[in-house]
Amino acid sequence: MKERTDTPEFSSSWFTHKLRVRYQETDQMAVVYHANYLNWFEMGRTEFIRQFGFTYRDMEERGVLLPVTDLEVKYKRPALYDDWIAVFTRVLQFSPLRLQFQYEIRKWNNAEGASIDEMEKAWPDGRERPGELLVTGTSSHAWVTKEMKPVRLDKTLPELYNILKGQLS
Amino acid sequence: MKERTDTPEFSSSWFTHKLRVRYQETDQMAVVYHANYLNWFEMGRTEFIRQFGFTYRDMEERGVLLPVTDLEVKYKRPALYDDWIAVFTRVLQFSPLRLQFQYEIRKWNNAEGASIDEMEKAWPDGRERPGELLVTGTSSHAWVTKEMKPVRLDKTLPELYNILKGQLS
Amino acid sequence: MKERTDTPEFSSSWFTHKLRVRYQETDQMAVVYHANYLNWFEMGRTEFIRQFGFTYRDMEERGVLLPVTDLEVKYKRPALYDDWIAVFTRVLQFSPLRLQFQYEIRKWNNAEGASIDEMEKAWPDGRERPGELLVTGTSSHAWVTKEMKPVRLDKTLPELYNILKGQLS
Amino acid sequence: MKERTDTPEFSSSWFTHKLRVRYQETDQMAVVYHANYLNWFEMGRTEFIRQFGFTYRDMEERGVLLPVTDLEVKYKRPALYDDWIAVFTRVLQFSPLRLQFQYEIRKWNNAEGASIDEMEKAWPDGRERPGELLVTGTSSHAWVTKEMKPVRLDKTLPELYNILKGQLS
Repeated sequence: MKERTDTPEFSSSWFTHKLRVRYQETDQMAVVYHANYLNWFEMGRTEFIRQFGFTYRDMEERGVLLPVTDLEVKYKRPALYDDWIAVFTRVLQFSPLRLQFQYEIRKWNNAEGASIDEMEKAWPDGRERPGELLVTGTSSHAWVTKEMKPVRLDKTLPELYNILKGQLS
Repeated sequence: MKERTDTPEFSSSWFTHKLRVRYQETDQMAVVYHANYLNWFEMGRTEFIRQFGFTYRDMEERGVLLPVTDLEVKYKRPALYDDWIAVFTRVLQFSPLRLQFQYEIRKWNNAEGASIDEMEKAWPDGRERPGELLVTGTSSHAWVTKEMKPVRLDKTLPELYNILKGQLS
Repeated sequence: MKERTDTPEFSSSWFTHKLRVRYQETDQMAVVYHANYLNWFEMGRTEFIRQFGFTYRDMEERGVLLPVTDLEVKYKRPALYDDWIAVFTRVLQFSPLRLQFQYEIRKWNNAEGASIDEMEKAWPDGRERPGELLVTGTSSHAWVTKEMKPVRLDKTLPELYNILKGQLS
Repeated sequence: MKERTDTPEFSSSWFTHKLRVRYQETDQMAVVYHANYLNWFEMGRTEFIRQFGFTYRDMEERGVLLPVTDLEVKYKRPALYDDWIAVFTRVLQFSPLRLQFQYEIRKWNNAEGASIDEMEKAWPDGRERPGELLVTGTSSHAWVTKEMKPVRLDKTLPELYNILKGQLS
């Protein structure tokens, strides 16, 4: 059993964001170049935060950055040019010092009959997620200043801390 | 103790490759965008293989691809625009089915007195490596066909298999 | 006066595509890196073609590629992270041998009161386009085979040629 | 004849920089994605300036930026993965307000017998340049502050202005 620590593990609902694969994202294997999934993770967490009425851009303008400290990615199947992709994002760990996200990159299958535009934004953990699973990953982050010094979010940006705490607990 | 399996763990010597950070690789935090280190890992393993007289390009032209299946990255300190970077690469695991690389991204410090051009190409494991450690990582790969079907390298491209086996055992 | 040639100049209606600026697209000037507008041009022409019920992906799968031969870009104002961007695209020249697109990159101004989701897809040439003009450009293309040999589209892919001819004349 | 204006046209010697094509720079046409040549232009002008004992990085740290205002590119032949590339750069126009560069992207041909490492750095205009010509281009730039306000380089950074004036006249 995992001990309860400063950064308890839990799982928020999954939040979705859709995108279409760009030509520039492919490589000469005719699949998406592996580093580009990290951009999609970034878009996933940006939209995850936006759902709470706060933006990553606001956060940076107020002097708090959230660089990646650890990253793990598993590549199962490649995405192809022009595919519709659903990025599923949720929070695994949250504390005044750190934040950890989990991601699933899924390929939307038109054969399932529904347009990706009708995809719901939030998916509770137990519910089956649509599409073919291509890539999974986690990213860990630390709250820091523009000078890359660690900060406690509850002291530096209590407004955002309280929103996240309210939503993620 | 780790059991001996199909893919024994071991450590080849580190092989180095130098590069200078491009403007395009920075982001608005004024540091290298985190996904770009994956490109440097790719360059590290390309040059690692080239030292054995075989190229990744030859390999692909002969029908064998080496996509990434797993990736782990730890970000300690950021690289900055125009920094000289040394990419250290070695092989952690090698089998007819798989290949795993380990990487260290180090910032060259001119204050150490030597030009990066004088940096030696090969560094045995025990020897202290120069520069400030910025990022570490591993990437796991599978040998596959152009149709992304797994292959045994010893059957499909025995020439390359024997070179790697001779060098890495 | 411009003579009538193999590739008469004319102007189709503008077609729009929206996107939000990604973090990865910024550089350390805290604006979008200048090469990234070329990706947005690419997305603009991809969506322009899609409106006619044919996709760039189909086209490539049937053996016709459309590489860029000439490019001109004028940068007036920078796009910023998280901005909503409208890419306006139209065709300037069309022939069995060549295709030329024109682009306007415009920043959506929420103050205008309407959501970018309500932006109309097609804009006749005379009508004032919304948003602040950031970047303009043109790209010229040649129809070629996978081996980069020029082809006449009316011979090689008459289906697409007739669609474009019907729509663009 | 071209009139003498604030920004006289002239031609400095070509300055060279070598690079090897990265896997990440390819797309599914199995050639270098067209936007990536702009990164190489950027590297070309960075190294061009460095030859004079001043760096683009210094310049930015002292508050002067040099964004692109106009760009023209002609694509003749594609670069391929792992090719050795020579970026030729020279200055076409220089004034206290503006700077214009010209570029040639050339593919190094090993068959010519010499290693790219032996390529000379400077090439007077009349001398035949080695390698196969792939892409040509020009980029125009304005000297601006961090807030993107135009500045006169001779007032703001006379040290750099005098170096460039001495070298380019």
